[in-house]
Amino acid sequence: MAEYLKDFPSGPLDQYRKRASFDWKKLKLYLYSEEILQYQHNAYQEFLRHPIFYSESYQTRPLDEQRKIAAKQTMILNNMESLSVANAFANSHFPIIKIKLLMHLNPSTAVKNSISFAMFPSVVQSLGTERHNHYLKASLGGDIIGAYCLTEFGHGSNAKSIQTVATYDRDTKEFILNSPCFEAAKCWAGNLGQTATHTVVYAQLITPDGVNHSLHPFLVNVRDPNTYLPYPGVIVGDMGEKIGLNGVDNGFVMFNNYRIPRTQLLNKTADVAEDGTYVARLRDPSKRYGASLGALSVGRVMIVGICAAYASQALTIAIRYAAIRKQFGPEGEEEISILEYQSHQHRLIPYLSVAYVLDLFSNYLGAVQIEFITEAMTGNDNTADLGLELHAISSSGKPLAGWLVRDAVQECREACAGHGYLKASGLGDLRNNNDANCTYEGENHILIQQTSNWLLKFWPAVMKGEKIDFPLKSVNFLTNAQEILRRKFNFNSFEDVMEPKNILDMYQWLVCFLLRASFEKYETLTKVEKLDPFWAKNESQVFYLKNLAIVYIQHFIIQRVYLTVLNAQDANIKNILTKIVSLYGVWTLEKYLTIFYQGGYASDSRLINFIQTAILTLCKDLKDDAVALVDVIAPPDFLIKSVLGQSDGMVYKHLQNAMFETPGAMSRVNWWKDIKSWKSKL
Amino acid sequence: MAEYLKDFPSGPLDQYRKRASFDWKKLKLYLYSEEILQYQHNAYQEFLRHPIFYSESYQTRPLDEQRKIAAKQTMILNNMESLSVANAFANSHFPIIKIKLLMHLNPSTAVKNSISFAMFPSVVQSLGTERHNHYLKASLGGDIIGAYCLTEFGHGSNAKSIQTVATYDRDTKEFILNSPCFEAAKCWAGNLGQTATHTVVYAQLITPDGVNHSLHPFLVNVRDPNTYLPYPGVIVGDMGEKIGLNGVDNGFVMFNNYRIPRTQLLNKTADVAEDGTYVARLRDPSKRYGASLGALSVGRVMIVGICAAYASQALTIAIRYAAIRKQFGPEGEEEISILEYQSHQHRLIPYLSVAYVLDLFSNYLGAVQIEFITEAMTGNDNTADLGLELHAISSSGKPLAGWLVRDAVQECREACAGHGYLKASGLGDLRNNNDANCTYEGENHILIQQTSNWLLKFWPAVMKGEKIDFPLKSVNFLTNAQEILRRKFNFNSFEDVMEPKNILDMYQWLVCFLLRASFEKYETLTKVEKLDPFWAKNESQVFYLKNLAIVYIQHFIIQRVYLTVLNAQDANIKNILTKIVSLYGVWTLEKYLTIFYQGGYASDSRLINFIQTAILTLCKDLKDDAVALVDVIAPPDFLIKSVLGQSDGMVYKHLQNAMFETPGAMSRVNWWKDIKSWKSKL
Repeated sequence: MAEYLKDFPSGPLDQYRKRASFDWKKLKLYLYSEEILQYQHNAYQEFLRHPIFYSESYQTRPLDEQRKIAAKQTMILNNMESLSVANAFANSHFPIIKIKLLMHLNPSTAVKNSISFAMFPSVVQSLGTERHNHYLKASLGGDIIGAYCLTEFGHGSNAKSIQTVATYDRDTKEFILNSPCFEAAKCWAGNLGQTATHTVVYAQLITPDGVNHSLHPFLVNVRDPNTYLPYPGVIVGDMGEKIGLNGVDNGFVMFNNYRIPRTQLLNKTADVAEDGTYVARLRDPSKRYGASLGALSVGRVMIVGICAAYASQALTIAIRYAAIRKQFGPEGEEEISILEYQSHQHRLIPYLSVAYVLDLFSNYLGAVQIEFITEAMTGNDNTADLGLELHAISSSGKPLAGWLVRDAVQECREACAGHGYLKASGLGDLRNNNDANCTYEGENHILIQQTSNWLLKFWPAVMKGEKIDFPLKSVNFLTNAQEILRRKFNFNSFEDVMEPKNILDMYQWLVCFLLRASFEKYETLTKVEKLDPFWAKNESQVFYLKNLAIVYIQHFIIQRVYLTVLNAQDANIKNILTKIVSLYGVWTLEKYLTIFYQGGYASDSRLINFIQTAILTLCKDLKDDAVALVDVIAPPDFLIKSVLGQSDGMVYKHLQNAMFETPGAMSRVNWWKDIKSWKSKL
Repeated sequence: MAEYLKDFPSGPLDQYRKRASFDWKKLKLYLYSEEILQYQHNAYQEFLRHPIFYSESYQTRPLDEQRKIAAKQTMILNNMESLSVANAFANSHFPIIKIKLLMHLNPSTAVKNSISFAMFPSVVQSLGTERHNHYLKASLGGDIIGAYCLTEFGHGSNAKSIQTVATYDRDTKEFILNSPCFEAAKCWAGNLGQTATHTVVYAQLITPDGVNHSLHPFLVNVRDPNTYLPYPGVIVGDMGEKIGLNGVDNGFVMFNNYRIPRTQLLNKTADVAEDGTYVARLRDPSKRYGASLGALSVGRVMIVGICAAYASQALTIAIRYAAIRKQFGPEGEEEISILEYQSHQHRLIPYLSVAYVLDLFSNYLGAVQIEFITEAMTGNDNTADLGLELHAISSSGKPLAGWLVRDAVQECREACAGHGYLKASGLGDLRNNNDANCTYEGENHILIQQTSNWLLKFWPAVMKGEKIDFPLKSVNFLTNAQEILRRKFNFNSFEDVMEPKNILDMYQWLVCFLLRASFEKYETLTKVEKLDPFWAKNESQVFYLKNLAIVYIQHFIIQRVYLTVLNAQDANIKNILTKIVSLYGVWTLEKYLTIFYQGGYASDSRLINFIQTAILTLCKDLKDDAVALVDVIAPPDFLIKSVLGQSDGMVYKHLQNAMFETPGAMSRVNWWKDIKSWKSKL
């Protein structure tokens, strides 16, 4: 048997492992393929050769040490063969698998690694020209370290109001960068706090004629790569401690009339000639728009994968603990595992389905995204529609994944009760790190408006009976929206309700209903109440556009993941995956049940009763498979970072070791003599 | 004007303060009374005289320093006149006000202070006899520091399975304490990790005849109060870092055949004579049961107050920031505060109503609890019903408050977006500290079963038409349950739906419906499906008993808080408080809407539409009052501990100072020379 499919150590988890309805090795192979499992395995082996990758204890290190470790890991990773950039592109699935691996390794390192060796070079490549090629090489080789500065203290989402200016000085052929006030300081840039030598800076470009040509990107050297001291006129610093991801040195920078050569403008789409003339390059905006939106999706698609990685870690911890932890039992009998309780099943098993669905969905989406970029890089302009669709999917998929995993981790934390509150449970760090996913790469609530605005445009087409066809087929069913809206609830049993096909039908009704309702709401606000479009859009968010974006992406996720289920040959695998998709479907549908009554799709208690029965039936059905299911998606023990979640199930022994191993755990505190003096100190 | 009602500094929050529909000073006086405001003010003034109470920066201190600060603050607080125990009992509202004050000061200190000077002495007093009086005095004076050990690594909720044993040795007249394994080590005891000299230990008492008399409490000296070294046979240590509350030294202890004198048994209800005879004291179990349950509620009632304190802090931060932060705006116009967005209002303002409702409710409940204890201490045995009712209220109120504030803090964190992710936002610490409230003093999901089990017993009485009457009137309406269940939705407008009286009516229907449904479910499972009671109760939790406990407590909270509203004389105050209660009511009802359709209370879209309109109308209505509303419940600036939430609204200036004030923020890292070497290190 391949090394990456080794049996788990025998122990208290055996009782559940034996009860599984499927062969976990077959499922793992089916879901990930040999090639991916080998790729992961090679990376794990390489990690294990460097103690820097598994030297963490359960005590929070001082901030400076966390920074140093992440910086060092980032640099070392860049030379690892198994995870090399060349290797990553050998299979379109590898990049998303790689980011998940790195998230399990160290989320801060993963973020720094992405900024340094993926985001910064790709921005320089896509926004610059030949004259910036040496930066690209230097950054890929680690000779310079890059950052990306768009956000300012005063402005994040609304990039148009950015206040940093770059004024061209014809005499010296330089741009003069200036930050008029602290609100205009660039902030939140990863790597900028301590390690970046260079950064991309977005600034309002002003030519000598006084014209503001709006935001443009500049490549700015902020620290001397030899001395690591900032250049005069650059006030650069670290933003200090955050809620999580503390290995990342997020920084701020202010420019005090700092001069940079003209050639530092990243001039792919526009340039300023030596004499100060502004030169825009020709392009076909209609075609490029979709493609560029698609390219912007990379970060968000990766975050869907990051969320999936966190979810698999959290559920591994909580499910294994729930199998081991015993408490109460029927009168006169032995205590039972808490996983046997209906309440506990209902708390965890739907989130286990979330972990699976997000993992499968992100692997699919990651590959699509990589294929899209490869296409777009070859100059293929037929990618416009795919770019638009990817943008809509990633702009709702990232918020949904962030929120689902926020709730999943929290439920896992609470489900592990007291011991879950220990730092050594690993769940606090997962929560603190995942929290950022709700905010960066587009604040969730603002980001989903990208999706809902796009969807809203389809309603007129629906009314005209036009065919709606996009490459990933996420909106194709809208073609039949009028017919879908005539559907009524007509299932006769909870078994019917939990059929994935029927779940998809119900979701389609939801999307169509909310699309029509949102459109009509907006029309009423603008045409009847005469609101200006800004306020009309604003007042159509809650209960309308927000829900629309979410049910759209839920439908698409289930649609995609269900294809993976249908392709399974092994009956046991097909069966277990069907249950997972069903549970994900009915459990997420439950949140929108009122809309079915609001829209007249249902009117009596059957829908609710069937959904509730389906949820409880599936939870109970899956509880004996739960341990084997996490065995499939769990990272190896050295990356789980939890005393509660190790594959040997020796929870109390790991707890004991963690306690005893902590320096000073059983020592007298060195301020013991002071205690007496404090009691009378006033 | 009294010092505690001073005007806030003028600044960017003025625009909203001016728009308020009420006088914040009048509201503050109405809600808290002069006596309480003076009590708070005296404490704040006393805090300000000791730099130890406001010496925190925005950087996490090393664990040992956090411990030392909390230990020192704990001891110093005990000598503060304004917060003295005698002073706290001058007004039955003071104890809950005190715990809120201390939570704003430092949650770890508050916890340690409560264990040392309230919980430990009161346990010794209530479980021990005259022979333990000197411990009581010593602990109140700070000469000994106490802890409380019930939970073991292997058992928390199921106390009956505790494994620590105390075997009586007739020859030496000692008990021999022993922990058979690491799972039997006592754990999670606050103060035990580093500072406790003594602890109450629950152990299975075994007499020389080999009989196990089940759990009994012992007073055990674990560390020498002079040298602070553990006694031989005591293995005592610290549990290390936690997700939050890291100033609290939660500890574990194992006993290695450790001998303690016979007289260390806390022998109020049972004793062991010198010859080893077990002697149970006489008592009337039926009367004492309710009273003792009521006494056990103290911790949970205090936690409702703790949650309220966290909520007021979090909402102060998020609402003030939302008023200051501007982003986007109508085409060609100035940017608007994010508080103007419907979506943002809907995210925060319902939680502002949560902060108010929990604050008022906890002040009421805290006073009732103190009055109950005072009564019970005088030996009044008529407190049995009140004790039972308090137990049911605190066993559902604590979980509800913990969960509501968990979600409130998280929403505030996300609503402050990037800057909310800074440690200096204060929101991460609030989340990490509040998290414990979902677990300690009874894991939430297990605890609410106390309430639902109690409620379930009323259904037979309802069916017999018996009158149900309890002192706090939380269940009195059940007398009319049959009639309530005949109610149908018949409101004609959203204004009707948001009337507090009608909200209470709808909640009553929910309680009655879920009570009947739960009862019938349980009966079917036991009588038709022949399940044993353990499994039948287990299978009636999700969708039945769990929801029942929560809607019961929601109804009671609204019922109580609405009385405060009705008593207001000032029309503006009555108006604003009505809106708050209405919003809390409709927003919480929204989570149970499906049940109204399930139970046939409603069948068309009106209920949903009215609830949605009511929520949005109230949010919009309250947004101009939101800043003034947080002014009423906000702690003073030095206790807000957030750069985003200061009363002057100078968000960016505080941010800048926090960044610049951080040591080394703009310094070259001292490992800068290593960076080059890492890049080629493999």
